[in-house]
Amino acid sequence: MKQTFLIVVLALLGQLITAQQNQQDVEKKIDEIIKQLTLKEKVNMCHAQSKFSSPGVPRLGIPEIWMSDGPHGVRGEINWDNWGYAGWTNDSITAFPALTCLASTFNPDLSHQYGVAVGEEARYRRKDILLGPGVNIYRTPLNGRNFEYMGEDPYLASIMVVPYVQGVQENGVAACLKHYALNNQEEWRGHINVNVDDRTLHEIYLPAFKAAVEKGHVWSVMGAYNQYNGQHTSHHEVLVNKILKGDWGFDGVLVTDWGSAHNTKEAAYNGLDIEMGTWTDGLTSSTNFAYDNYYLADPFYELLKSGEIDESVVDEKVRRILRLMFRTNMNMERPLGRMNNKEHHDVARKVATEGIVLMKNEKNFFPLDSEKEMTIAVIGENATKMMTIGGGSSELKAQYEISPLEGIKQRFTKATILHSMGYSSGPSAYGRVIPPYLDQDSLHAAAVETAKKADIVLFVGGLNKNHHQDCEGGDRLAFELPFNQDALLNDIIEVNPNVGMVMISGNAVAMPWLKDVKAMIQAWYLGSETGNAIADVVSGDVNPSGKLPFSFPAKLEDNAAHFYGELSYPGDSIDQYYKEGILVGYRWHDTKKVKPLFAFGHGLSYSSFEMSNIKTDKDSYFAGETMTVSCDVANVGEVDGAEVVQVYVGKPKSEVERAVKELKGFDKIQVAANGKQSVNITINIDDLAYYCTDKSDWELEKGQYVVYVGTASDNIKKKIKVSVK
Amino acid sequence: MKQTFLIVVLALLGQLITAQQNQQDVEKKIDEIIKQLTLKEKVNMCHAQSKFSSPGVPRLGIPEIWMSDGPHGVRGEINWDNWGYAGWTNDSITAFPALTCLASTFNPDLSHQYGVAVGEEARYRRKDILLGPGVNIYRTPLNGRNFEYMGEDPYLASIMVVPYVQGVQENGVAACLKHYALNNQEEWRGHINVNVDDRTLHEIYLPAFKAAVEKGHVWSVMGAYNQYNGQHTSHHEVLVNKILKGDWGFDGVLVTDWGSAHNTKEAAYNGLDIEMGTWTDGLTSSTNFAYDNYYLADPFYELLKSGEIDESVVDEKVRRILRLMFRTNMNMERPLGRMNNKEHHDVARKVATEGIVLMKNEKNFFPLDSEKEMTIAVIGENATKMMTIGGGSSELKAQYEISPLEGIKQRFTKATILHSMGYSSGPSAYGRVIPPYLDQDSLHAAAVETAKKADIVLFVGGLNKNHHQDCEGGDRLAFELPFNQDALLNDIIEVNPNVGMVMISGNAVAMPWLKDVKAMIQAWYLGSETGNAIADVVSGDVNPSGKLPFSFPAKLEDNAAHFYGELSYPGDSIDQYYKEGILVGYRWHDTKKVKPLFAFGHGLSYSSFEMSNIKTDKDSYFAGETMTVSCDVANVGEVDGAEVVQVYVGKPKSEVERAVKELKGFDKIQVAANGKQSVNITINIDDLAYYCTDKSDWELEKGQYVVYVGTASDNIKKKIKVSVK
Repeated sequence: MKQTFLIVVLALLGQLITAQQNQQDVEKKIDEIIKQLTLKEKVNMCHAQSKFSSPGVPRLGIPEIWMSDGPHGVRGEINWDNWGYAGWTNDSITAFPALTCLASTFNPDLSHQYGVAVGEEARYRRKDILLGPGVNIYRTPLNGRNFEYMGEDPYLASIMVVPYVQGVQENGVAACLKHYALNNQEEWRGHINVNVDDRTLHEIYLPAFKAAVEKGHVWSVMGAYNQYNGQHTSHHEVLVNKILKGDWGFDGVLVTDWGSAHNTKEAAYNGLDIEMGTWTDGLTSSTNFAYDNYYLADPFYELLKSGEIDESVVDEKVRRILRLMFRTNMNMERPLGRMNNKEHHDVARKVATEGIVLMKNEKNFFPLDSEKEMTIAVIGENATKMMTIGGGSSELKAQYEISPLEGIKQRFTKATILHSMGYSSGPSAYGRVIPPYLDQDSLHAAAVETAKKADIVLFVGGLNKNHHQDCEGGDRLAFELPFNQDALLNDIIEVNPNVGMVMISGNAVAMPWLKDVKAMIQAWYLGSETGNAIADVVSGDVNPSGKLPFSFPAKLEDNAAHFYGELSYPGDSIDQYYKEGILVGYRWHDTKKVKPLFAFGHGLSYSSFEMSNIKTDKDSYFAGETMTVSCDVANVGEVDGAEVVQVYVGKPKSEVERAVKELKGFDKIQVAANGKQSVNITINIDDLAYYCTDKSDWELEKGQYVVYVGTASDNIKKKIKVSVK
Repeated sequence: MKQTFLIVVLALLGQLITAQQNQQDVEKKIDEIIKQLTLKEKVNMCHAQSKFSSPGVPRLGIPEIWMSDGPHGVRGEINWDNWGYAGWTNDSITAFPALTCLASTFNPDLSHQYGVAVGEEARYRRKDILLGPGVNIYRTPLNGRNFEYMGEDPYLASIMVVPYVQGVQENGVAACLKHYALNNQEEWRGHINVNVDDRTLHEIYLPAFKAAVEKGHVWSVMGAYNQYNGQHTSHHEVLVNKILKGDWGFDGVLVTDWGSAHNTKEAAYNGLDIEMGTWTDGLTSSTNFAYDNYYLADPFYELLKSGEIDESVVDEKVRRILRLMFRTNMNMERPLGRMNNKEHHDVARKVATEGIVLMKNEKNFFPLDSEKEMTIAVIGENATKMMTIGGGSSELKAQYEISPLEGIKQRFTKATILHSMGYSSGPSAYGRVIPPYLDQDSLHAAAVETAKKADIVLFVGGLNKNHHQDCEGGDRLAFELPFNQDALLNDIIEVNPNVGMVMISGNAVAMPWLKDVKAMIQAWYLGSETGNAIADVVSGDVNPSGKLPFSFPAKLEDNAAHFYGELSYPGDSIDQYYKEGILVGYRWHDTKKVKPLFAFGHGLSYSSFEMSNIKTDKDSYFAGETMTVSCDVANVGEVDGAEVVQVYVGKPKSEVERAVKELKGFDKIQVAANGKQSVNITINIDDLAYYCTDKSDWELEKGQYVVYVGTASDNIKKKIKVSVK
């Protein structure tokens, strides 16, 4: 017993001291390695050798780096040198909910669990970098890739991204934060030049990246496809050199998006470390590897060899790559990972159920009583459509994906479940739309007939992962629901008024039928556990607590980006102008008094909560201080539930334009039925600063601020005036 | 300074104690893991999931096992589920010389260097098991796969295999000893039933396997295709259960050869642990994985589930697999490996040059003077043929392969080098012969013309890696050189008497022209450094010191297996009988007084050695004692060189049939020109025992033995009588 104790203590002590020593030694080791490398070997490390790997230095045992698309799970194995699937059978994984759903949980602890779990799967799949998470800001509901991001609010995204990154990296797998920066639409993403003022850049589009770097200590970042101020973002003097690697002190690796490099000298000088996916690949012969043609390959090598670019330029890239390696594939202590285990499935289901947002619930339509013998018509293609398929690079080979229909059938065993497709979206294809081959009129008519026979209709519709829906590589073409769903809904409602809507989408849509449906849940893309999570909420097994991470405008023009017309979105194919400035999302709706259909932060519960005793700890603060906002939350309903207390702050009188209010703190609390919980939310006074363009720094204005406390951006329970001195 | 010291001591102490603790804990950890596994998970671990991997347990983080063909280098990446190459570009490796060449070095230290190097490459390529080395005994020169083995002598193979295994395994990569057992021909290898007496089995065919297990502590063994005593060797009651896992205490994993399993119950009960490559694969649909049809897959699972086979049977297999994992992919301390580095190239070249055997050297034809301005005609297809291509599973994607012609050109810069192909073997194809498309008569004539113009002819011929040559999956069809080389040689000799033969082969061939060529080197298959190594020896940069690891008979019938006719080799397609018993190779030539063309152990030098003072330390010994044979070796030539002192022992009067002599010890020594070295070779008296069939154990006969000391089996310098009491 005594000896064992001694052994443990010695071992731990040894390890501890060794670890500290190691940390100090890594930079020295990197110095030593760089000294041993040839120029060619250094250059090789800076670009791809295949679709998803970059070379190491074989002769020295510096390993290759293997990457995989994320962020909702680890993508299936892709061929060495083309985009086809490699046909492996060991790459079916857990599909986690889309990041929009994760953001909707307003639960940073779940984000950490998500990161740990997806990181474990990446590690088991022998990946060194997981290409995610994405934190581009939800600027327009047409952006085909919004579902991969964390909504419209920089604070929410900042809070949610950090634990995800940390969770992934606990596995010795690098997260790769993307897409840096301003990649807020898919239309013309490869070249569109974003014009945005400095203040908006820093206040809206960069904070989540900054948080992931400074607080999450992310080990890699992915550049974006678009341009900003006339320069491609993947090798951008300001975005990369000044801000990311300068101001924020990012010490990791900047990777291109696949094919986002455009210029050797810019890539060399403006901080690009690894170039991937440049479209010169695939054109190989047996002796001419197209990868050698990459901007950071032979052309870079030639400039280095001639001395036109100093070798210190490539050394700095290699230093960063080696640093990433010591954190990942050269970290001998990283765990082995695991995959498809119950813990991961549980995380997927928990995120999915906590992220589902109860949007409307007339006369407590939901939850449906599973003990009741009734007929439920489940209508809509999305009731059975696999949403892990399609969507672009986030497509997954899920080990399983429980469809909404399957989940409802399994849960409502006493009900008669009817199903009718209602419409058909046609086959999915990357980058193009294929017309559906089924007769839409027949499907439509059959669905209406089915609805007639039912006590209750669950319409499981929305968007899907096809091109021009929620899918990488293109934006949506219209704000309306596709495939004639609005007409179908109207016809169904005419024959059966008991319609509950289950909206599967990653974006806001027009809802002309909203007033006529009894209830609606926003169910995102939920991954493997889709059907179970929907059944959890619909049955009341789980009391919904999701909150919208972005505003749902009533019509497209109510969205700030669209208000300003085509030059704002999508641009003129060369330039676009973010004319709405800082007034993105609820900032726009609040400030311009444009009432949204559903507001940022909105989300109902099967219970009711009452807030009381809402106060700040003081009424005036100095810079550097912390404000604590507290309140009591009582669950006055009949079921246990969770509520998100949201604290916004505004400055009515300001030397600059201000949004009415901005989210500055939140806390999600579980409250038992008839129970009460106290909440304390702390806000750094310095975080009330605005970004001053003149001095290129943050400026904390003195004077009066208003603290808004509530449970949604449009449901403020109390306003408190405080002053900053 | 003091603190650093303390840190180092504490860290080392911690690690040391942890390591010891770990070793003790592994079996306990395995117990714990097995308790957590479902029956299905256990069964899954016992068979392939792809061409070269077997599954782990994803949910628990038990990794997959990745294997690669060896033994001369790490094979290129193969598709998941068919035999095509995957088209990766990171899998070009160092091609090391064939194991026949390694055996010819008679240098165990080189074998260790070889193992370390190829193991490092396997580790860098992320392989957990390297499928090699092979130690099947050279029984007939027609065996298409002899080049992958270590010759005809069980003692030589035993001494050479152990350090190879250890070297590989130092990398946390399991060597996989193959093919166990009696896979001594390719003809009908899938079903031929070998009939061999127990004594021959134990004295000739098993010792190298035994040494690799008992002394090399090899972590995995591969079963063979053939049958023995009516049962397939990959799940053989006697070979596996009794001998390998029983008598020898093998605690590792028995893997099939690809497709060598034939019966679920035999595989279950007779010690097969992992089934690979059964020919039911490739027939998959998306829902029906053919791997589930493997003998150790669903059929095994059903018998376990029904209780017909006890779960302890699969537990034992899983225990062994997990033990291998704790030694390889679950050993967190294993190094990262490296590839294509100078050290590996140096090892390849060193083995190649030390393994080349100078067979004949009339009037010091070799070395050729590289300072001389002369015309050298390099004739023969093998002067330019890539020998890393073809040959079956040992085929490699070499990073480079220097051809004999290239090597000679680079070394003999002052000479005019002519080249003529002389003959064409046609394209290589696995499992079939494709006729050459070039006109043989023209090639023949052109070569003779070329020979006329030269001062010296180097004929670089021999066999190649095509089907029915030195290639897996078929045996040679004739003892003679193929492609009309004998006639070509005769015609060349007629026009130019200064012919030096460079024989590229892994087998002995008929040499009707031998008396007419001035010199000959046996140059095996030498891998990446082929041309350099040949040039090293031909130029005299390296003084040859290789010794033949098998006898070269003058004609096929002089080989013991062939002497006894077709039932001995190749059998009647169902059975074959090893009628020559223990009299394999030089044992046959010696005992039956059949003079070989070149004897086992033969190999000339550019220097001359004289042995003196040859003696044993005593003249009589008891069981358990050690005999030391000593002598002095003087280099009386003009260049530094190496000589192999070989000690054979015979027992003229014996209660059983004995070979005249058997190799029992050897030592390779470097001796400077005009220098002298003392050699001490120790022999365990117990190793003079024969295998007694009656008592199924080794029997040390008392009485008089003769110790033969020399530099080849046909060049004995002294016989010493000793007695065992």
